Amino acid sequence: MRASAIALVVGGRLEGGTDPDLTGAAPLDHAAPTDLTLLSSPRYAPDAEGTAAGAILVSEELSARVRAGLPRIVVSDVHGALALLLPHLYPPQTTQAGLHPTAVLEPGVSIGDSVSIGAHAVVGAGTRIGDRAVIGHHAVIGSLCRIDADAYLHPHVTLYAGVAVGERSILHAGVRAGVDGFGYSHQDGRHVKVPQVGRCTIGADVEIGANTCIDRGSIGSTIIGAGCKIDNLVHIAHNVRLGEHCIVIAQVGIAGSTRAGRYVTFGGQAGINGHITIGDGATIAAQAGVFGDVEAGETVSGYPARPHREALKAQAGLFRLPALMKRLRTLEHALLGKDRTEP
Amino acid sequence: MRASAIALVVGGRLEGGTDPDLTGAAPLDHAAPTDLTLLSSPRYAPDAEGTAAGAILVSEELSARVRAGLPRIVVSDVHGALALLLPHLYPPQTTQAGLHPTAVLEPGVSIGDSVSIGAHAVVGAGTRIGDRAVIGHHAVIGSLCRIDADAYLHPHVTLYAGVAVGERSILHAGVRAGVDGFGYSHQDGRHVKVPQVGRCTIGADVEIGANTCIDRGSIGSTIIGAGCKIDNLVHIAHNVRLGEHCIVIAQVGIAGSTRAGRYVTFGGQAGINGHITIGDGATIAAQAGVFGDVEAGETVSGYPARPHREALKAQAGLFRLPALMKRLRTLEHALLGKDRTEP
Amino acid sequence: MRASAIALVVGGRLEGGTDPDLTGAAPLDHAAPTDLTLLSSPRYAPDAEGTAAGAILVSEELSARVRAGLPRIVVSDVHGALALLLPHLYPPQTTQAGLHPTAVLEPGVSIGDSVSIGAHAVVGAGTRIGDRAVIGHHAVIGSLCRIDADAYLHPHVTLYAGVAVGERSILHAGVRAGVDGFGYSHQDGRHVKVPQVGRCTIGADVEIGANTCIDRGSIGSTIIGAGCKIDNLVHIAHNVRLGEHCIVIAQVGIAGSTRAGRYVTFGGQAGINGHITIGDGATIAAQAGVFGDVEAGETVSGYPARPHREALKAQAGLFRLPALMKRLRTLEHALLGKDRTEP
Repeated sequence: MRASAIALVVGGRLEGGTDPDLTGAAPLDHAAPTDLTLLSSPRYAPDAEGTAAGAILVSEELSARVRAGLPRIVVSDVHGALALLLPHLYPPQTTQAGLHPTAVLEPGVSIGDSVSIGAHAVVGAGTRIGDRAVIGHHAVIGSLCRIDADAYLHPHVTLYAGVAVGERSILHAGVRAGVDGFGYSHQDGRHVKVPQVGRCTIGADVEIGANTCIDRGSIGSTIIGAGCKIDNLVHIAHNVRLGEHCIVIAQVGIAGSTRAGRYVTFGGQAGINGHITIGDGATIAAQAGVFGDVEAGETVSGYPARPHREALKAQAGLFRLPALMKRLRTLEHALLGKDRTEP
Repeated sequence: MRASAIALVVGGRLEGGTDPDLTGAAPLDHAAPTDLTLLSSPRYAPDAEGTAAGAILVSEELSARVRAGLPRIVVSDVHGALALLLPHLYPPQTTQAGLHPTAVLEPGVSIGDSVSIGAHAVVGAGTRIGDRAVIGHHAVIGSLCRIDADAYLHPHVTLYAGVAVGERSILHAGVRAGVDGFGYSHQDGRHVKVPQVGRCTIGADVEIGANTCIDRGSIGSTIIGAGCKIDNLVHIAHNVRLGEHCIVIAQVGIAGSTRAGRYVTFGGQAGINGHITIGDGATIAAQAGVFGDVEAGETVSGYPARPHREALKAQAGLFRLPALMKRLRTLEHALLGKDRTEP
Repeated sequence: MRASAIALVVGGRLEGGTDPDLTGAAPLDHAAPTDLTLLSSPRYAPDAEGTAAGAILVSEELSARVRAGLPRIVVSDVHGALALLLPHLYPPQTTQAGLHPTAVLEPGVSIGDSVSIGAHAVVGAGTRIGDRAVIGHHAVIGSLCRIDADAYLHPHVTLYAGVAVGERSILHAGVRAGVDGFGYSHQDGRHVKVPQVGRCTIGADVEIGANTCIDRGSIGSTIIGAGCKIDNLVHIAHNVRLGEHCIVIAQVGIAGSTRAGRYVTFGGQAGINGHITIGDGATIAAQAGVFGDVEAGETVSGYPARPHREALKAQAGLFRLPALMKRLRTLEHALLGKDRTEP
C-alpha cells in the first residue's frame, strides 16, 4: 500500500518527497523498510532517530521530532488513524462457514446462515445461533442459549445454560459466562448452596477478554450493556448490571448486585464491593477498593476509595510524615524544653 | 406454586388476603405478576413501590415498607427462606447418566453407577469415579485421580494426575487443580524447576468457582477442607491447607505453605503471603495484604494488614493530615515567629 | 533409594548411624517411615520432634534441632538439594509419542520426531511442532504457530494464530497466548476495536502458570524472555517485553507496552501501569501499584509504589498518627491555652 494511499485512508498529509510501498505496521525499534511505524508520545521520540521504517505516522506536535528524509504522514490523532488503517493493511481473516464433523449438536439447535462451528464444539439443546456467528473450536454452549448474528466465540469458551450474547460481540478464549454466583445460606455451621437460577445477558458489540468470568443472576439477571469492553481475567458477580459502553480493565472484580451506569471506566485490578451504585461516566482508578456509591462523573482512587483529589492529597501527606514529625519535635523542644521520646 | 404453599415451605406467614399462583422468583424491578419477589434490605425498599410481582417475601422489619394490596410472605431470614424455596420453584436439572460416545477413557478407569461423562471428556488411566458423579463436556481428568460420589465437574475442568475430589463437591468451568506449584532453585543465574510431586486433595461439599487454580503440593499435599466455598479466579499455591468451611471470595491469592484454620473468610482480592498461619474464624478483609500470622477470630485489613480497628484508625488519620499540617503551621508561627516552608 | 545414595546425589553428609531405604519425600507432619523429610526453616523445627520420617534433609544450622536417632543428611542448601534429588526419587513420566486418533490437524502442519499430540487437540494450518514436543489433550493451537523442541503444553491451552513457544517451555492448563490486546479508538461515543495484528513470542525455558493470559502485540510483539517463570492467573498486556529470567508471581497484571529488563521480580498481585520501564534486577513488592519507571536493582512497594525503604517509613508513620495527634494537642494546649476541637 503506497504511503499516499495510506494518507488518503487516514485523512493525513504526506510529507517527505517519496511515496514508499508499505506492507505492514511495526513499532519504531522493530520496523523494517517495508513497514509503516508511528510516533504518538514524546516518550518514544528518541527511538524515532534510528528507526528502519519506510515511513512514519506522526502527530502534528511531534512531526518536528522525525528525522529529515523519513517520509511522514501527519495526522491529528495517531491512534485513531491507525485504527482506520489497520483493516486495510491486515484484512481480517474470514472463518470458513460450516459445521466441523467433530462438533456435537444436541437436539433442537437452530443455526442461521453462514455459521461456523469449530472442531469438537458442543452446542446444547434448544440453543439458537444467528447468521454468520462463529463458534470456536472446543466451545461448550449450554442449552437454551441465544447467540446473535456475527457474534464471535473464540476457542474454549463456556456458556452455561440460558446465556444470551448480542450481535457482533466477541468472547475470547476461556471466557465463562452464566456461572453460578457465590451464594450460600448459613445453616448449622455449614454453607448451603442457594440455587442460582437467574440469567446472564451480554449486549451487542461487547468484547470480553480471555479467562474472564461472568456469573449468572441469583434470581434476576447479570447484564452487560451494549458496547462494553472487558479485559482479561475480570470477575463479574451475580446480578451485576453494567450500563452501555463501560470499560473494564484486566483483573477487576465487581461483587454481587452492583450497578454501574453508562461509560463507567474501571481501572485494572480495582475491586468493587457488592450492592453499590456507580453513576454514568465515573472513573474507578486502578487498584482502587470501592466500598460506597460513586457519583456520576466522579473519579475515585485508593483504599478505601475516595475522590481522587482527596486521595492524592492524603497520599502526598503520608510521604511528608517523617518531615512533619521532625517539625513537631522542634516545637516540643522549644516549648517544653525537653526531648520527647517517640512513642 | 401457591403463595400459601410457599409460606409453608419457608415457615413464613402469608398476609394480604389473596393467594396467587407463582411460577418463578425475580428481583423487584424485573418481576412479572407470576413472580415472587423479595425485599431484604432497606436499600431496595423504594423499588418495592412499583414492583409488578405477584407476591413478596419480606422480613418482619421491612414488612411495613411493602405497599398495601401486595400479598406478602413474612419471614425472619429472607435469604435463608429463598434458599429453601428455590429448589421447589426451580427443580434442579438432572444430567442424564451415560458415557458420551466421543469421550475418551484410558485403561483401568473405574466408573460407579449412574455416572455421566460428557462429550469429548478425557479420563486418565486408573482414575476412579464414584456413583452419580458428573464429568462435564471437555473435562480432562489426569491419571490416578479419585472423584467421589455425586461430585459435579462442569465443562473444561482440568485435573492433573492424582487429584482427589470429595463427595458432592462442585468444580466450575475452567478450574485447574493439581497444577505444578511455582518452585525453582536458582543455579548459575537460571531458575531450575523443582519437580512438584505432591498431591491435591479437595474435601467433600466443596464448591470451586470458574477458572480458579489450585496447585498440587511440592512434596506434601495442598488440602482444601470439607465444606469450603471458593469463588472465581482464586489462586491457591502449593502446600496450602484450608480447614473446613472456609469462604474464599473471588480473585484471592494464597501463597505457598500457608495454613488456615476452620471458618476463615478471605475477602475478595486479598493476598496472603506464604508460610503464614491463620487461626479459626479469622476474617481477612477485601484487598488486604497479609504478611504475618493472624490470630483465631481476628479481623485484619489494609496493607500491610493489621487488626481492622487499628487499620481504620490509621486510615482515618490519613485523611486528617492536611488539617493537622495546618495546625502545625499555626503553632510554628506562634512559637517561632516565622513561616516555615513546607519541605 | 538408600540414604547414603541420597547423600551422594545431593553432596551432603549422612549422620546417625543407620542407612534406611527411602521411597519418597514428604513434609514433617505427613511423612511415613519410608519417606525422607526436610527442615529448612526454624519455623518448622517444632514439627521435627514428632515426625515419623525415616530420615531428614537438614541445613547445617538447624541440624542440632533434629532429635537424636533420626538419620540426617546435612547440606548447605536444603531446597537446592531437594531439587537435585526429586528427579531421582520421582522419575519424570514420559508422555507416549504419537498422534491421538481424535486430534484434528489442519493442512500443512509440520511435526518433528517423537511428538505427542493428545486427545481432541486441534492444530492450525501451517503450524510447526519441534521434536519431542507434547501438545496436551484439548489444546487448541492456531495457524502458523511455532512450537519448538521439547516444549510441553498441558491440556486446554489456547494459542492464537502466529504464537511462538521456545524450546523446553512449559505452558500449564488454560494458558491463553496471543490474545487480542485491549485496544479501542473512541469514535462518536463508541469504543471501536483497533485490530491487534502483532505477535506473541515466548522464549526458551519459560514456564507459564495455569489460566495466565498473554496478549499479542498491537502492531509489534509481546515478548517473554528466555528463562522467565510466570505463575497462575497473570495478565500480560499487548506489547509488553520481559527480559530474560524474570519471575512473575500469581495474579500480577502488567499493562500495555511496559518493558522490564532481566531478572526482574514481580510480587503477587502487583499491578504495573502501561508504558513503564523497569530496570534489570528490580523487585516489585507484592500488591504494589507501579505508576512510574523503576531503576535497575531498586525495590519498590506500596500504592503508588515508592522505594521500599521510603514506603515502609511512611507506613510506619501512618500507624503513629494517633500518638502524633495527641502530642500536637499537648503543644496547642501549652502554647495557645485552649483545647482545639478536632477538625
